[in-house]
Amino acid sequence: MKLASFRVHGKPTWGVIEADHAVDLGATLGAHIPDLKALLQAGAYAEVNAARHASPTMALQGLEWLPVVPNPEKILCVGLNYETHRQETGRAVVSHPTIFTRFACSQTGHGTAMVRPKVSEQFDFEGELAVILGKPGRYSPREQALQHVAGYACYNDGSIRDWQYHTHQFTPGKNFPATGAFGPWMVTPDELPEFAERRIQTRLNGTVVQDAMLGQMIFDVATIVEYCSAFSPLQPGDVIVTGTPGGVGAKRTPPLWMKPGDTIEVEIDGVGLLRNHVVDEAAQ
Amino acid sequence: MKLASFRVHGKPTWGVIEADHAVDLGATLGAHIPDLKALLQAGAYAEVNAARHASPTMALQGLEWLPVVPNPEKILCVGLNYETHRQETGRAVVSHPTIFTRFACSQTGHGTAMVRPKVSEQFDFEGELAVILGKPGRYSPREQALQHVAGYACYNDGSIRDWQYHTHQFTPGKNFPATGAFGPWMVTPDELPEFAERRIQTRLNGTVVQDAMLGQMIFDVATIVEYCSAFSPLQPGDVIVTGTPGGVGAKRTPPLWMKPGDTIEVEIDGVGLLRNHVVDEAAQ
Repeated sequence: MKLASFRVHGKPTWGVIEADHAVDLGATLGAHIPDLKALLQAGAYAEVNAARHASPTMALQGLEWLPVVPNPEKILCVGLNYETHRQETGRAVVSHPTIFTRFACSQTGHGTAMVRPKVSEQFDFEGELAVILGKPGRYSPREQALQHVAGYACYNDGSIRDWQYHTHQFTPGKNFPATGAFGPWMVTPDELPEFAERRIQTRLNGTVVQDAMLGQMIFDVATIVEYCSAFSPLQPGDVIVTGTPGGVGAKRTPPLWMKPGDTIEVEIDGVGLLRNHVVDEAAQ
Repeated sequence: MKLASFRVHGKPTWGVIEADHAVDLGATLGAHIPDLKALLQAGAYAEVNAARHASPTMALQGLEWLPVVPNPEKILCVGLNYETHRQETGRAVVSHPTIFTRFACSQTGHGTAMVRPKVSEQFDFEGELAVILGKPGRYSPREQALQHVAGYACYNDGSIRDWQYHTHQFTPGKNFPATGAFGPWMVTPDELPEFAERRIQTRLNGTVVQDAMLGQMIFDVATIVEYCSAFSPLQPGDVIVTGTPGGVGAKRTPPLWMKPGDTIEVEIDGVGLLRNHVVDEAAQ
């Protein structure tokens, strides 16, 4: 099943994606399931299946997408989780996942503009797999951690590199508005067998700039969920962004920054294709 | 004016603190101002003044305190913001504030237990001044930044040091549940003239372990608000925790960790006295 958040006539709603159309489940279930996070909290998949044939539909063409989960309580991001990226940054091998955070207000949906802020030209792409949590969990052992995963999505962890490196803490460079693209939808885990063999690719104006297999993660999804659930109780709707492969713009010679007019895509085989264009904040 | 969040008969509410009692404004204004964040969003101080004499009161003795703002959208924490602490950590001088984050679920109120998690014995104190935002702001210039501040409070940025240093990003060590104590109340800025001359002191079982003046911050409040508002739009109810002076337990020989049965206090002259006791997670 593919689940997404989007707007209909300007109003936020959520639903299921089927072939070339979206089913607006917020229109039928919205009174007690107002958004996708509420669906995950309720685990009300039976209601989804009961309502999907009686709910209004709209073409995907022209749909106004929101971040898959627009209002997660927590967004935990993993740094340096592919060996190719660790090597290009020159960082040491570590025994635990490197965790920084995003605020929900830094996110944007599929098909929208990613915004280069007026204070920097160092706007970089980071194609990543996002994990969306479905069940609460604390101290979830690795062997059971995947039971807490409700789905997977594409994420572009857009980074303002000079602000990321103002100090040793990444927060400023990872939280500018409309820099974290998340979409178009999440797929439930049953749609992603042979997880490790899935290709993740980032393309800037059609040119491949990052290319890896999900199985190349240093810390796998179960290990990351186990680790994060030890220091913070995970909740339905929480998002873990699992790190980017080598090839980021900052580590190229000369550096390759995203600029207004660019098209940036993150595609994960079996998950989806997230496409955004880049605009200048000043031009908004 | 002193504003706080607390429970009455188990139900979260908010109000004004006067001498030896709390005024339950949630009881009279709760229908359209359900919590302190909503009050800050509405800026409805006139309503507070109109309702405070017609609202129920309760003694502070035995009051069940919540974090001053239980549900901030963002908690931004400044690291290494007193020279004495920078020196004891051996960190380089930097040109920008060092920013990491807490999630709201890591907070706890005055008078409650701060919880030492079962996975670590390295539970450290960090007495700090918290700034609570009252007006939205993006790219707020330093000269106007203090206009966005609704008030100040005491904060104990309790840290699990081994988890903080698993990697170069602090997130895991700063987000365990019930490690961020915040209270008892916030004071509005008019109650804090001569800000720089105010003493901040942390006491463990009555012994002074941190002692500084607010004027010793490396980056002052206006500079921090300006910086944070550049990378993230600040919202009413957002919290900025402004850093801790030298004296933390981790940098002592031998290290001084908080342990079950301890009492830890953060007192800021003119702001308040935040007191918590320490318990083991296992004993909860």
